[in-house]
Amino acid sequence: MSQAPNPPILLTPGPLTTSMRTRQAMLRDWGSWDGDFNEITTRLRQRLLDIAKAGATHECVPMQGSGTFSVEAAVGTLIPRDGHVLVPSNGAYCQRLARICRTLGRKVTTIDYTEDQQVSPADVDRILAGDASITHVALVHCETGAGVLNPLHEIAVVVARHGRGLIVDAMSSFGALPIDAARTPFDAVVAASGKCLEGVPGMGFVIVRRSVLEKCEGNSHSLALDLYDQWVYMRKTTQWRFTPPTHVVAALDEAVTQYIEEGGLQARGGRYARNCEALIEGLAAIGLRSFLPSDIQAPIIVTFHAPDHPNYEFKRFYTEVKKRGYILYPGKLTQVETFRVGCIGHFGEAGIPGAVAAIAETLEAMGIPTAQARATAEA
Amino acid sequence: MSQAPNPPILLTPGPLTTSMRTRQAMLRDWGSWDGDFNEITTRLRQRLLDIAKAGATHECVPMQGSGTFSVEAAVGTLIPRDGHVLVPSNGAYCQRLARICRTLGRKVTTIDYTEDQQVSPADVDRILAGDASITHVALVHCETGAGVLNPLHEIAVVVARHGRGLIVDAMSSFGALPIDAARTPFDAVVAASGKCLEGVPGMGFVIVRRSVLEKCEGNSHSLALDLYDQWVYMRKTTQWRFTPPTHVVAALDEAVTQYIEEGGLQARGGRYARNCEALIEGLAAIGLRSFLPSDIQAPIIVTFHAPDHPNYEFKRFYTEVKKRGYILYPGKLTQVETFRVGCIGHFGEAGIPGAVAAIAETLEAMGIPTAQARATAEA
Ligand SMILES: Cc1ncc(COP(=O)(O)O)c(C=O)c1O
Ligand SMILES: Cc1ncc(COP(=O)(O)O)c(C=O)c1O
Repeated sequence: MSQAPNPPILLTPGPLTTSMRTRQAMLRDWGSWDGDFNEITTRLRQRLLDIAKAGATHECVPMQGSGTFSVEAAVGTLIPRDGHVLVPSNGAYCQRLARICRTLGRKVTTIDYTEDQQVSPADVDRILAGDASITHVALVHCETGAGVLNPLHEIAVVVARHGRGLIVDAMSSFGALPIDAARTPFDAVVAASGKCLEGVPGMGFVIVRRSVLEKCEGNSHSLALDLYDQWVYMRKTTQWRFTPPTHVVAALDEAVTQYIEEGGLQARGGRYARNCEALIEGLAAIGLRSFLPSDIQAPIIVTFHAPDHPNYEFKRFYTEVKKRGYILYPGKLTQVETFRVGCIGHFGEAGIPGAVAAIAETLEAMGIPTAQARATAEA
Repeated sequence: MSQAPNPPILLTPGPLTTSMRTRQAMLRDWGSWDGDFNEITTRLRQRLLDIAKAGATHECVPMQGSGTFSVEAAVGTLIPRDGHVLVPSNGAYCQRLARICRTLGRKVTTIDYTEDQQVSPADVDRILAGDASITHVALVHCETGAGVLNPLHEIAVVVARHGRGLIVDAMSSFGALPIDAARTPFDAVVAASGKCLEGVPGMGFVIVRRSVLEKCEGNSHSLALDLYDQWVYMRKTTQWRFTPPTHVVAALDEAVTQYIEEGGLQARGGRYARNCEALIEGLAAIGLRSFLPSDIQAPIIVTFHAPDHPNYEFKRFYTEVKKRGYILYPGKLTQVETFRVGCIGHFGEAGIPGAVAAIAETLEAMGIPTAQARATAEA
């Protein structure tokens, strides 16, 4: 049995495995009113803007809480109370986005796809053309539910052509897949600390178009989640409105330093793409098929069909793989039995082959023949 | 000049100075779906309930974000949309509580006090007797703005006698000042990780009466801040609904272990009371007067009058004290020039005398005579 590193490597789409350097940045306490800490906030906001090439047109407003808090903050602050939101939906996070809009009393129209389909720019075009009451489109960039990459740029161009606003949940893609504000028009892109930037979880942020944000005073349904208020206060004081998660902020800043050292988006995205390829090939070799067609698979998280064998049971599979040093993720599909493996996080070159080996050993331990085992037996 | 420890000690009311052991608990990554992490969450919730002696009657629902997020979650989830809230107000955090209620569309009545007055149970009694439409009272336990301790128990008894609900913002008192659910009736007590429990900031929690919470489905104005939803999901799965700030949670759990080792509430409250006394006496000896009468001063944070001298300027004062190893807090009063010094956090016995010495040296460096200097000159 391969050695289990302790603690296990997280092959989950956030929280994920971070570097020791990032975690060590949390070994110090910071005063939230102090200039030293406010410098971190200011630098971090600027660097997050730079990642999206958005410095000239947008503002970065960080927000306490998990990623969903930032999504809700964006919806509640940017979409007027009488707005009407189109949510193209091909998975669980799209559904959550629609649910947020409904909870906040915004009118919602969805375009429903199956979980192995991409959102189609032509559909968005047609629906916007046919319904002038739609004020905004809310799109999930990488639908982490199954792992589908949606065509952000093409959809953004369509939305802009119709003169509507676009809010993008780029939680699981920001920093790894290209988002370029100079090319791709959007009102807001939402992401969080504990995803592809490889920070720890505890804060999100919204890259929001300045000219849009300026008009959003008083929109928000919430005090805590008021992005406008947070922005105005931060601009005036360089401080967060309410106590920031100081250690999480310091860790993200340190993680972004390493991101830049690694070579930025191209390097990060390239590494994840190699992980993704190695994972799909490695598991294919032992007979585990990935769920999505490869042309719509984002290099973030991969859904695999569970082995079609009576001995398979996710709980046991999870526990056995964990014993061997890797934490996987349950599937999120309703119709098909699946499990998921993340491609993101700070782990070395051996991470993916190690996970493949751990999964192979697990299947063996569970008495489930792998393709290799079958091939050998047949030979 | 006394040696500046590096980094400085935070004499601020959260974030505050934590122990190295607490910070080291953040050196490991956790899967948010994993059993090992969920055990931490479950244990932590139980121990937080125990601190308030609330296990038999209440539930502990943790919430991502700063303390304000949990206050808003409690207001939004527990007070019906047509509720009417009485907010006795003697400072900035009371005002914020009233603002949250208004932002959420709840009707609000305030009782206005000056910042050096305690909330009076008799006033609450009279107003509840005169207005049957008031459904809830929202009280700040320790008003961190000036540092006033409000008489929670007496007010809670009044509110219960009138059959109204009580929501308590105990952000800066929880864990240090007694709150006993078996004696003191309340619907909800709200606090956060980075205050008297000496964790790092990034999450709050609400100790909420089970029989009340059970009836709150669908009340919330927000998805992210829906306390009912968070509770139901957590009960079913032992997991947080959205990504938890895993490192912050692990740090708080470790901080609570040390809290118990120290001797719990009595020991923690006792230590802070000694800090508070040493601080007030120490600064009095160099001519700096505290703002509040001692019988309403909470042993959490102390407001001091700024020196009445033309050389005094807060920014310089702050910087000079920081150079000497201590971070202070600006005053939050509107009428009087003040500064604040926290009594809470993990620092050794020498912390307060060290801070007093740093302040004395600072005044000297700024050319502001201290009482001792004056006494010596006069002798
Ligand atoms: C696309 C997407 N949106 C939203 C979220 C929610 O983020 P959080 O769990 O931090 O609230 C996630 C989390 O994985 C995500 O992948
Ligand atoms: C009494 C009180 N209420 C609310 C808060 C707000 O907490 P946060 O800054 O974590 O949102 C504080 C913070 O110090 C407080 O002292």
